[in-house]
Amino acid sequence: MTSAGRGLYLRRMKVDGTPYRTIWLGADGTTVQVIDQTLLPHQFVVRDWRTMEDAERGIRTMIVRGAPLIGAAAAYGMALAMARDDSDAMLTQAYTTLMASRPTAVNLRWALDDLRNLLAPLPHAKRADAAYRRAAEICDEDAEICRRIGENGLGLIRKLKPKGDRINALTHCNAGWLATVDWGTALAPIYQAHNAGIPIHVWVDETRPRNQGASLTAWELAKHGVPHTVIADNAGGHLMQRGQVDFCITGTDRTTRRGDVCNKIGTYLKALAAHDNGIPFYVGLPYPSIDWTIEDGAAIPIEERHASEVSRIAGRTASGEVVTVDVLPEGSPAANPAFDVTPARLVTALITERGVCPASEAGLLSLYPEQSQAA
Amino acid sequence: MTSAGRGLYLRRMKVDGTPYRTIWLGADGTTVQVIDQTLLPHQFVVRDWRTMEDAERGIRTMIVRGAPLIGAAAAYGMALAMARDDSDAMLTQAYTTLMASRPTAVNLRWALDDLRNLLAPLPHAKRADAAYRRAAEICDEDAEICRRIGENGLGLIRKLKPKGDRINALTHCNAGWLATVDWGTALAPIYQAHNAGIPIHVWVDETRPRNQGASLTAWELAKHGVPHTVIADNAGGHLMQRGQVDFCITGTDRTTRRGDVCNKIGTYLKALAAHDNGIPFYVGLPYPSIDWTIEDGAAIPIEERHASEVSRIAGRTASGEVVTVDVLPEGSPAANPAFDVTPARLVTALITERGVCPASEAGLLSLYPEQSQAA
Repeated sequence: MTSAGRGLYLRRMKVDGTPYRTIWLGADGTTVQVIDQTLLPHQFVVRDWRTMEDAERGIRTMIVRGAPLIGAAAAYGMALAMARDDSDAMLTQAYTTLMASRPTAVNLRWALDDLRNLLAPLPHAKRADAAYRRAAEICDEDAEICRRIGENGLGLIRKLKPKGDRINALTHCNAGWLATVDWGTALAPIYQAHNAGIPIHVWVDETRPRNQGASLTAWELAKHGVPHTVIADNAGGHLMQRGQVDFCITGTDRTTRRGDVCNKIGTYLKALAAHDNGIPFYVGLPYPSIDWTIEDGAAIPIEERHASEVSRIAGRTASGEVVTVDVLPEGSPAANPAFDVTPARLVTALITERGVCPASEAGLLSLYPEQSQAA
Repeated sequence: MTSAGRGLYLRRMKVDGTPYRTIWLGADGTTVQVIDQTLLPHQFVVRDWRTMEDAERGIRTMIVRGAPLIGAAAAYGMALAMARDDSDAMLTQAYTTLMASRPTAVNLRWALDDLRNLLAPLPHAKRADAAYRRAAEICDEDAEICRRIGENGLGLIRKLKPKGDRINALTHCNAGWLATVDWGTALAPIYQAHNAGIPIHVWVDETRPRNQGASLTAWELAKHGVPHTVIADNAGGHLMQRGQVDFCITGTDRTTRRGDVCNKIGTYLKALAAHDNGIPFYVGLPYPSIDWTIEDGAAIPIEERHASEVSRIAGRTASGEVVTVDVLPEGSPAANPAFDVTPARLVTALITERGVCPASEAGLLSLYPEQSQAA
């Protein structure tokens, strides 16, 4: 890491003045600690993971979410498994169990493959330590990757010609530091622009059904002091039509070899609107979220999550209590596809830790030439 | 009305076996009664309006909503005003007050102009009776208009070649009988298809921020027995990409002379997705919602409603109590534009009480030739 990099890296994201990452090792050196993102923005609670099953449940129930953070969490899940039982059988069981926790995130597979390939040849007694070390490295690497995505995206923001006296970004879901280990992917360029004194304001899509925009993106932007306004997911197209959006930026759970972007359900609609209004649509992504094995986004299996995420919403009552309420008529069914695929033709550019490229196979290979023979 | 028309008209929408309209005259012959749509789907409550101010507040706070119903409600508001004070001053005051209650709905102006033009030349003592009679006529006319929109839309549905063994519609917001006096606009063809034995299933957009789809459309489809599934507004594009939508249909608050469609915020995004996937996008509309004075939808003023509609959501607790909860971080602002404009180029056809036409000036004039000199 360069000294400039280290300097920025140390200015990580804060919560009420205290620097936090989204996942870290507890004082006992074995317990993994995470921010419980299902309780934000209403409550700030740190959870302890003592077993692989804790990690699996935490990923599945979205206590941690966001493609990069899922990868880091799965790596620590492998470490927790090895700390309890360093057998080959457990290595296989942990890999299989954790892999099934969220089917869409390619980072999950990337991290689990990485850990399995590292651990399998090792003597059993060395596996736990090696897994913890590698999980910590993955976290540090992710923070550095996100910092670089931020730098590369900042270059694009500096070239924009805003329509008003501030730059208006629009983002969907949460691809901020809460979705990663630190910095974020889509929000990293926004944080860097804000830190550099560029007047930037963010339209935050609520992101139904789980409200990651309203609950997580708004929360972390507020904690960092970035001007923002929450809008219903329905509002973005209108704001683009009326000149109130200068660029869109999202993260991605999986980007194909040809640049199709699988991301939170609803991303495709915003990309259509950006295209229809001549507004740049950028996607920030770390290399582990590129799936070099898939060309066409239509081939990506889409996770169908439980209907209760549509029918029930959690919020604060006037007395500050957090309750979950039903919003549908009794008996009306709901469907809940969690992701959609934005075709590469609607994506203006991909922003990775290595630079900016067109959303195409040629574009991605220009940044990752080592993948050119692997089609 | 033809006898066939009368027969269908009598089969109006039911709530738990009892036929209802959305607005009617109470047993005393002066009180106006309405279903309180802000409490659906959790509670079914009928409200009494005894004054013009009750009507104004009812329209403004969306106890009644939907362009056609707003027109009928405004007409009854004029009648309530005249019953109390049949002076010229009150005629002007009621017109002005009611006009300001919802700025986007062109039906509001249409109904108020209609009543004012009728009442102004009359002797004061005859104004109240005449206003009540005309309000009742507007309600009956609206029911007949919607029945005809249903018939005309049914013709389009019969021509569809569904991708599966059922026809999948997608609708946004509520343009069912709750938005009108009876039948609905967008949902009238769906009700008629269902009544005719055509296997039809409706994807119901939740329609944030006010959840009219989840709370009203789902409720009325369930009460009528039409298969439906509620989805987050974000999901429609994905369903279209994966072949699960055969057509989209929405209502409109105001359609311009050239066929631009102003409707609930988010409609534009679904029209973009339908266009991108070669799926028909239909709009059902009664003639009073056509604004012959505006050509370009970009000229329509868009109502900005209170941010609390984004930040707060009402729902049922486990004990059945209806509570409102906050979903945003404390201090995060929200914006709430209530409508957007779908350009005519994205609309496959307009369905009116007179027939089906392209979304263009020529198309509309083919159905309403009497408007051809009024440009």
